[in-house]
Amino acid sequence: MGIDKDNGSTVILESNCQSYGHYFKAEKVLYDNKSKFQRIQVIDTENLGRCLFLDCILNVSMLVEAHYHEAMAHIPIAMVDGELDVLIIGGGDLGIAKQVLKHENVKSILLSELDEEVVQVCRKYFPEFFESEKDPRLTIRISDGFEFLKNTDKKFNVVIVDSTDPAEHAPILLSDEFYSLVNRRLKNDGVLMQIVADIQFYNSAWKISLPNLKKNFKNIKPVFAPIPLYATGNWGMVMASNGNDLDANKVSQQYLDRIKGIKTMTSERVRGWLSLTPDEKEFLKSIRTLDNR
Amino acid sequence: MGIDKDNGSTVILESNCQSYGHYFKAEKVLYDNKSKFQRIQVIDTENLGRCLFLDCILNVSMLVEAHYHEAMAHIPIAMVDGELDVLIIGGGDLGIAKQVLKHENVKSILLSELDEEVVQVCRKYFPEFFESEKDPRLTIRISDGFEFLKNTDKKFNVVIVDSTDPAEHAPILLSDEFYSLVNRRLKNDGVLMQIVADIQFYNSAWKISLPNLKKNFKNIKPVFAPIPLYATGNWGMVMASNGNDLDANKVSQQYLDRIKGIKTMTSERVRGWLSLTPDEKEFLKSIRTLDNR
Repeated sequence: MGIDKDNGSTVILESNCQSYGHYFKAEKVLYDNKSKFQRIQVIDTENLGRCLFLDCILNVSMLVEAHYHEAMAHIPIAMVDGELDVLIIGGGDLGIAKQVLKHENVKSILLSELDEEVVQVCRKYFPEFFESEKDPRLTIRISDGFEFLKNTDKKFNVVIVDSTDPAEHAPILLSDEFYSLVNRRLKNDGVLMQIVADIQFYNSAWKISLPNLKKNFKNIKPVFAPIPLYATGNWGMVMASNGNDLDANKVSQQYLDRIKGIKTMTSERVRGWLSLTPDEKEFLKSIRTLDNR
Repeated sequence: MGIDKDNGSTVILESNCQSYGHYFKAEKVLYDNKSKFQRIQVIDTENLGRCLFLDCILNVSMLVEAHYHEAMAHIPIAMVDGELDVLIIGGGDLGIAKQVLKHENVKSILLSELDEEVVQVCRKYFPEFFESEKDPRLTIRISDGFEFLKNTDKKFNVVIVDSTDPAEHAPILLSDEFYSLVNRRLKNDGVLMQIVADIQFYNSAWKISLPNLKKNFKNIKPVFAPIPLYATGNWGMVMASNGNDLDANKVSQQYLDRIKGIKTMTSERVRGWLSLTPDEKEFLKSIRTLDNR
């Protein structure tokens, strides 16, 4: 993890494990500063569009951002009927908020971002996402998501947790205490959607998260969607609920066709992401064993 | 593209475009030599298992090889009924051959690999794949795939083309002449399966391939399957046929359940890979326009 100069151009190295990582060459460095919480970098690139890095981990590439932001928003929202109050924890770049606001039945979004500098920087450099600020349904609150949940008395239909590599950077967001708080703030049919990790070699996040999810939720549904440029590209999110059956068929093609400008999803593809391959089943079973020993 | 020493350990840099690439750290370099055709490297890694690189492009990581090899083998084979004669062009590591041999209805595999040194090296370092050599149905032939097709009078039910980054390294395998030869050597219900490229920024392979496929095949079916560690992870293959309707439903769960040791596929996931997202439709449409102008 770090930055090198290669023939005068800035190169960001993203270390994904001992053996493997990515390098990204900047055409132009637009921003590079250490905030109170993390290093924030915005670069323009020749092939990947504008990119946001937090602590040298790629968070946004404008070439492929829709893969991540669409899946994180449109899958959990499909699960719940009626008018929705949505909580986003993290997500200060507004990439997910932009997608959530496409749904007319979303009544409000409360976005709790820890790092004010992320919001300020992205407001300047990612105007496509920050158009969302004009929508009166969106409220941005600079606060720690865990603390916010502890102190609020609001209830939500959908809670979306969008954090950089939670096992490394925000393990509290995978804890029993956190999931218990989420559960208390979810309405009866409410759904949690959370980014976890690449299952190829970031097992640790899943090993922490899954047993804690099981203590707090009846239904747990991993979403193994490919997220281009995130580690191996074979990423994993998870949905959880108590009074909602998390049926993949709710993400119908009719539902997707109504979403303006959708790019990366089909109903068949979502059903695939919500099905479990033999490999994934074995991996999840190995965690259950850890949990039960 | 190249090799550096980092604190004494060998690092292989894989350049995927101007702005982006991967780095791989070797725990141990097992083989590194320039053959008549390419640089061949085999390394052991801490997290990705044993890896094969051809011209500094990752071809095999034992951690994730099944994703690529299973998709390339089991999807086209599902399309065709009865006893099958299979031709593999490239694939000298035998990763795909191993999967193809799992099907009892496969009567013969002819594998045409250009580079004898790939076969020799992989025989030594990838014994899991080379167990396949004991199967009398497999014949390995050291020959140029294009020349082989020109001179053979055999016919095949399935032709699988497994080459490194064809636009860069083997553009002839994307040519009108090549597809015309394949077409002549396919039986009536025969199917071609070919690796093409990551559609995020390797458009060139698709732009060469698709118009030429259209000149020779009635049915063309892109397969957008995530292949972990291949570029962005969002890879693309293509199937083509004349007398075969390439129906995704042929890859039923019952069919997959019969394949011994299958790891990375479900019928739902395959149906997803064979569906086209709005982004992919737009991309393919832009190529048709090029073709028709």
